[in-house]
Amino acid sequence: MSHFQQIREEACEANRQLPAMGLVIFNFGNASVADHKKEVFAIKPSGVPYNELRPKKMVIVDFDGKTVEGKLKPSSDTKTHAILYRNWKNVGAIVHTHSLYATAWAQAQRSIPIYGTTHADHFAGPIPCAPAMTDELIREDYEYQTGLQIINHLIDNNLGYEEIEMILVGSHAPFTWGRTAAKALYNSAVLESIARMAILTEQINPGVSTLKQALINKHFERKHGPDAYYGQ
Amino acid sequence: MSHFQQIREEACEANRQLPAMGLVIFNFGNASVADHKKEVFAIKPSGVPYNELRPKKMVIVDFDGKTVEGKLKPSSDTKTHAILYRNWKNVGAIVHTHSLYATAWAQAQRSIPIYGTTHADHFAGPIPCAPAMTDELIREDYEYQTGLQIINHLIDNNLGYEEIEMILVGSHAPFTWGRTAAKALYNSAVLESIARMAILTEQINPGVSTLKQALINKHFERKHGPDAYYGQ
Amino acid sequence: MSHFQQIREEACEANRQLPAMGLVIFNFGNASVADHKKEVFAIKPSGVPYNELRPKKMVIVDFDGKTVEGKLKPSSDTKTHAILYRNWKNVGAIVHTHSLYATAWAQAQRSIPIYGTTHADHFAGPIPCAPAMTDELIREDYEYQTGLQIINHLIDNNLGYEEIEMILVGSHAPFTWGRTAAKALYNSAVLESIARMAILTEQINPGVSTLKQALINKHFERKHGPDAYYGQ
Amino acid sequence: MSHFQQIREEACEANRQLPAMGLVIFNFGNASVADHKKEVFAIKPSGVPYNELRPKKMVIVDFDGKTVEGKLKPSSDTKTHAILYRNWKNVGAIVHTHSLYATAWAQAQRSIPIYGTTHADHFAGPIPCAPAMTDELIREDYEYQTGLQIINHLIDNNLGYEEIEMILVGSHAPFTWGRTAAKALYNSAVLESIARMAILTEQINPGVSTLKQALINKHFERKHGPDAYYGQ
Repeated sequence: MSHFQQIREEACEANRQLPAMGLVIFNFGNASVADHKKEVFAIKPSGVPYNELRPKKMVIVDFDGKTVEGKLKPSSDTKTHAILYRNWKNVGAIVHTHSLYATAWAQAQRSIPIYGTTHADHFAGPIPCAPAMTDELIREDYEYQTGLQIINHLIDNNLGYEEIEMILVGSHAPFTWGRTAAKALYNSAVLESIARMAILTEQINPGVSTLKQALINKHFERKHGPDAYYGQ
Repeated sequence: MSHFQQIREEACEANRQLPAMGLVIFNFGNASVADHKKEVFAIKPSGVPYNELRPKKMVIVDFDGKTVEGKLKPSSDTKTHAILYRNWKNVGAIVHTHSLYATAWAQAQRSIPIYGTTHADHFAGPIPCAPAMTDELIREDYEYQTGLQIINHLIDNNLGYEEIEMILVGSHAPFTWGRTAAKALYNSAVLESIARMAILTEQINPGVSTLKQALINKHFERKHGPDAYYGQ
Repeated sequence: MSHFQQIREEACEANRQLPAMGLVIFNFGNASVADHKKEVFAIKPSGVPYNELRPKKMVIVDFDGKTVEGKLKPSSDTKTHAILYRNWKNVGAIVHTHSLYATAWAQAQRSIPIYGTTHADHFAGPIPCAPAMTDELIREDYEYQTGLQIINHLIDNNLGYEEIEMILVGSHAPFTWGRTAAKALYNSAVLESIARMAILTEQINPGVSTLKQALINKHFERKHGPDAYYGQ
Repeated sequence: MSHFQQIREEACEANRQLPAMGLVIFNFGNASVADHKKEVFAIKPSGVPYNELRPKKMVIVDFDGKTVEGKLKPSSDTKTHAILYRNWKNVGAIVHTHSLYATAWAQAQRSIPIYGTTHADHFAGPIPCAPAMTDELIREDYEYQTGLQIINHLIDNNLGYEEIEMILVGSHAPFTWGRTAAKALYNSAVLESIARMAILTEQINPGVSTLKQALINKHFERKHGPDAYYGQ
């Protein structure tokens, strides 16, 4: 049995959840689960349909993106996952999808404004959209640069990766993460829901204001503050 | 066996209906059922997934929002439910969701205009949207103030809680109620449908007029008037 | 056994198809099936959930809207069905829904323009929207007047009821019909699809032209003309 | 047993996938599978519901659109399929649907701009929309001319049929193709997804730019270039 059995199982299950949660069709996404002690993660093999995934088919990759164990080729987005794990010690899982509404915001190259408490319960500001890369960076190691782009965009906006667990990559699609696979998947589904509510809100009231600061603070603190008590 | 077995069972079932009816994902909503003689209600425990709910896990709370029976923490929206029950003697159940279209109207901070007979069959005017609270009230007992906001907005608009059984809370989401859990759930689903039809109607005809008064009267009266005969 | 067993069975099945085909929620619609020799039709009883319907629960009504057989109250829309059957000898079934997109067009008080061959395969012109009634007519026998409104709107537009089998009633919702229950149901589902495609088409290209006449003729004739050969 | 058993089975299965994949309702589409050695293809019989299809019911047609084997009438779109197979030696299957979003773009008579990497992963430019035919051509052999229109529109735009495997026919609906039935079906589903994301993108940001050239090149090459490595 593999030394990496647990992350193989968790990553397999997380990938199988993607179509079940309505977040992907065909191969439009991937999930990975990390073991930070061993500095490796398990990720979806490239091109294999979700319903054919098994723990033993997961690919074990180190934080430089090199395959450690597994016969199949890892997802083409592997290097993006690798650089995020290398830089973010407390992230246990990463999910990448092309879910409909979050991807449409990414394609529109707009951050998602905070319009209501559904959004504020999860993050106290707009969901950031990292700009598209320069042509030079695109021609370099593209997937590695995508990860760097995510890391730098959070830094540029004074956001910690434990504070916000989701981002849009401009012209591309969303990435989410969390301490566990369940949390990273939850974040992908919540982001899709927030993205859908936000465009509807703008269509219903094109002049709508974003949520007032007192409500942002209240909702985020009741869920995430020192005296958190949230839970519907 | 609990003295509150019946409301435990009804509240459990009502909460389990929320995802089945497509009104919530994860923990985005809660339902409660009251026993006005005992001045208590049964409500969803905080953070427990809907499919793990059982009657014995429901929390029994009094009309001040204090737990009377149950080991789990009640929903963070409990005080909103409590103040509504205290003030509205004939309400047997309350449902709160973040359903997509109703929440988008709430975020857009607009009442839903009455555009057709689907709406008129249920209420003879716009579905009101209570404005967001003042910063001062938000910093106070927030969930209690949310309930007060709902009560006062109906009073300010000369609406009785038995006349209209649904409201949008601006920047937040809808609340609905009724004599029974089935009716409160029905109202949540009808509100979602009305909300969706209304934005589509405005998109198809941006200059559309609201329903003429004679049709509003006719449809509401055939369902709710003294000679009511409605029933498709 | 009832003399009307066959139309009871067909009407029961047609009503049960309404939620299965995604055209209604709760009691938002009704279907009826006629026996023109006996000058009666079987229609949904008022307020009974679709999944509780049985052939014996259907109500048999004559073409004046009077109950001939059955203990339950017939649908509140019964008189609309009755006047249509009385005037339209070759209509075997009528379906009324509040399906989302068709109802939104009705609420927007617009006929649905003909934008493509999906529409042209079914009717060679816009789907008409009858205007809302005058206040005077609304105060009269409302459901009877609704039927009259449908009949007169077709006449005013030189349309035969065998030529077009669907209409929107302004501020209200769609009605469809056909020789059989299957055809009337098919028409409701096709109308919903056409209605949805049409608003999307306008959103994608606000300046779009309606379908050119040569294509309208070609598509309608290959399905309905003397040399019809259509069938995907 | 038929000499054409394999393409009968594949075409039957491909047609049955159409409603399962959410691409058609009723008879709104058809799929065919070709045997280029025998210069024939198997196609859906006209007007038969998808769930009643069996391999033996498929109609075998030659590349002039003449029936070679089968008692049922072939789909009314048969001649469009025939001319495509005659001209495109490496196409093994063709799928035609009236799927919602792709058809709305066709009705809007617009090519689908390239707004993101989901699109770029499949084709490095806009999805073309062939203009509606002249009145003269419509009156001729309509389905044959539709095929010719598709072939000529690709040629006029310097596109090879192996380079792009999907097209919109203006005022009508999409056609897709591929080496296998699975690939042609995949292309129909991907096109529907791209079409839906594109209109949402324009609604979220009406002034959005199309994808920058460096990203178009990168994504298309990682999937289709000589050093292709794509696979999520």
